[in-house]
Amino acid sequence: MGGSKLGPKGFQAAGIACGIKTAEGAKDLALIYSEVPARVAGLFTKNRVKAAPILYTRKTVRGGVCRALIVNSGNANACTGKKGLMDVEAMAKLTADVLHIPYQQVLVSSTGVIGQPLPMEKILRGIPSLATKLSPYGFQDAAEAIMTTDTHPKLIAERMATGEGEITILGMAKGAGMIRPQLATMLAFILTDAQLETEILSALLREGVRCTFNRITVDGDTSTNDMILLMANGKGSSTPLYPGDERFHTFKATLFRVMDQLARAIVRDGEGRTKVVEITVRGARNSKEAEKLAFRVAQSPLVKAAFFGQDPNWGRIMAAMGTAEVPFDPQKVDIYFDGDLVVENGVRAKDSSTDKIKEVLKREEFRVIIDLHQGISQASVLTTDLSYDYVRINASYHT
Amino acid sequence: MGGSKLGPKGFQAAGIACGIKTAEGAKDLALIYSEVPARVAGLFTKNRVKAAPILYTRKTVRGGVCRALIVNSGNANACTGKKGLMDVEAMAKLTADVLHIPYQQVLVSSTGVIGQPLPMEKILRGIPSLATKLSPYGFQDAAEAIMTTDTHPKLIAERMATGEGEITILGMAKGAGMIRPQLATMLAFILTDAQLETEILSALLREGVRCTFNRITVDGDTSTNDMILLMANGKGSSTPLYPGDERFHTFKATLFRVMDQLARAIVRDGEGRTKVVEITVRGARNSKEAEKLAFRVAQSPLVKAAFFGQDPNWGRIMAAMGTAEVPFDPQKVDIYFDGDLVVENGVRAKDSSTDKIKEVLKREEFRVIIDLHQGISQASVLTTDLSYDYVRINASYHT
Repeated sequence: MGGSKLGPKGFQAAGIACGIKTAEGAKDLALIYSEVPARVAGLFTKNRVKAAPILYTRKTVRGGVCRALIVNSGNANACTGKKGLMDVEAMAKLTADVLHIPYQQVLVSSTGVIGQPLPMEKILRGIPSLATKLSPYGFQDAAEAIMTTDTHPKLIAERMATGEGEITILGMAKGAGMIRPQLATMLAFILTDAQLETEILSALLREGVRCTFNRITVDGDTSTNDMILLMANGKGSSTPLYPGDERFHTFKATLFRVMDQLARAIVRDGEGRTKVVEITVRGARNSKEAEKLAFRVAQSPLVKAAFFGQDPNWGRIMAAMGTAEVPFDPQKVDIYFDGDLVVENGVRAKDSSTDKIKEVLKREEFRVIIDLHQGISQASVLTTDLSYDYVRINASYHT
Repeated sequence: MGGSKLGPKGFQAAGIACGIKTAEGAKDLALIYSEVPARVAGLFTKNRVKAAPILYTRKTVRGGVCRALIVNSGNANACTGKKGLMDVEAMAKLTADVLHIPYQQVLVSSTGVIGQPLPMEKILRGIPSLATKLSPYGFQDAAEAIMTTDTHPKLIAERMATGEGEITILGMAKGAGMIRPQLATMLAFILTDAQLETEILSALLREGVRCTFNRITVDGDTSTNDMILLMANGKGSSTPLYPGDERFHTFKATLFRVMDQLARAIVRDGEGRTKVVEITVRGARNSKEAEKLAFRVAQSPLVKAAFFGQDPNWGRIMAAMGTAEVPFDPQKVDIYFDGDLVVENGVRAKDSSTDKIKEVLKREEFRVIIDLHQGISQASVLTTDLSYDYVRINASYHT
């Protein structure tokens, strides 16, 4: 959706440049606001080193209700000690003051460079002017303001009809690097005007993340600031949605589609990527083993460099699998590249030709299917290639 | 040592180009020969996908005695099924025939591209001519013939005096990529004319590998062909070395020094590397946790890209540590770059200046010391940076 379209009923947003990022006019401060108290659920990074806004917002989300979310990019407010925690509180307090809402209902999120104190004068000067820009049309600006190395904002909206009218689900995310979510994810904020209880919201978020945001990787590194929030303010449906309800099923499918699209958008905008590759491991004894193998292949620098070079080096896939600490029989493994059988029983398939594999590798997106022939479970992971640009972007992120 | 120097007494070697590698005149077939039966110990890749020569040689080493080792580069003979196993046997048989030694005393090793059948006509034509070139001066040629993406051969020799004369330890290795040994390593062959029992040889190899070859990483990937062999033919000492013996201690120290130098040489020649960085984690509760944390930092693509860019982004080190599944208190962590205190109690150290950190990052080799302040254990891991050249080399290795 473009900036001209409306978000869910009762939500407003804004995004401005307040000077945290050095690039002239680069937006770096976003605000999301619900006209009425919204239910909220959240998942947070499993990284043992947690940024100040994670520590703060995790606690606030436990209250189950929120009115606003203030986010800055360009600085992660991580590894910043006591000052970092005081800065988060100051951001929440000022936001609450200018919006005339309870301080306990303001969530805070940050993303960017680790280890530097926030430029608080700039942020505290920015918040009041940001609040004046709140608008039902401001989601595009907000999505821009949470970007770091992303090349474009990631904003998805879906609508569904209910007997009473229409429900909207809107999501925004930022990704690009340090992407290997562990039960949480990069930054992603999903808003809906559906009415749902907090526990149901939490369960939906957890289930949805498992098969979307937690099944992507760019570089296998996990951020100190990963956060995903799901807010529901009930302004679009007068009665709450409950499991068992027909509307609930449609809502759940729509929500998961939004999450899936955001997750894919993050990988498609992965740092320096020229390819998006879905690695599917099937025929596994259980889905945990399938996922472990798929991630091992999806994160191998040698496999990823071969994708970048369009090099039909399938042996690297076998070698990577062999290190996953999952038992499997190499002599039973089949590997397909977009439907082409390339490896059969662990050796090069008779009918496979290098030219055919190269044809597949030229595509911008393709699938690698690995069949273990050991069971009926499977898992898919979406990954990028490893390019010169990935190195370039990360060799000079700080300076 | 150069090609003009002698190896351990009673050993001979040779290396030739037999046409496996496409580059004109690139050596790709090596032979090592002991004039008398030598005791042998070996360690092999933990990768679940094992190349044919691994399966074969692992069994042969159990006999405890060997006379010769035939090695090819340019083709790993991995994921090659039954034909691969038959090819290894054919290599061992022909080598035994031309040297007039028992077939059960020939070891075989391969390195190179995975998943392609060996060009056996070339190899079988090469072995007889290789055997005619055997010489006490042939170790430089052999070390060249086991190279893949290495930029130079890795050959180390050390001598020690004993009451009876002199003992020599000579080692050669190949590395450069797919380097994250798991209880074994890339290819490394160490020869000595000392006299030792097989069990003692095995114990020495295991202990030495733990703190040398198993403490290095280039890209975190593990090869299907990792193999390290230690051979002792007894020609340099008329009496066997036993633990407790003074000579044994000198021998052990010398052997470990050879292993350490070879391991460091592998990292220094790591694919595309511009930096060599030693990551030390100290103040840990036990060495296992220290090692896990050190490896997590040493393998993070974001940390490695920052090293390449000489970017003083120490936050990435903290973020990488946080994903290691090792309990530690981020607020107690100190980090030093070559003696400069950069992080103190988890935040930027007061006296640290970005300029000072940049000074360290300009060096070709430097140390990062991470102090957890939780105990007295420590571990060090040697790693490389992640450069454009790493991507270039691995984007087109196959073709």
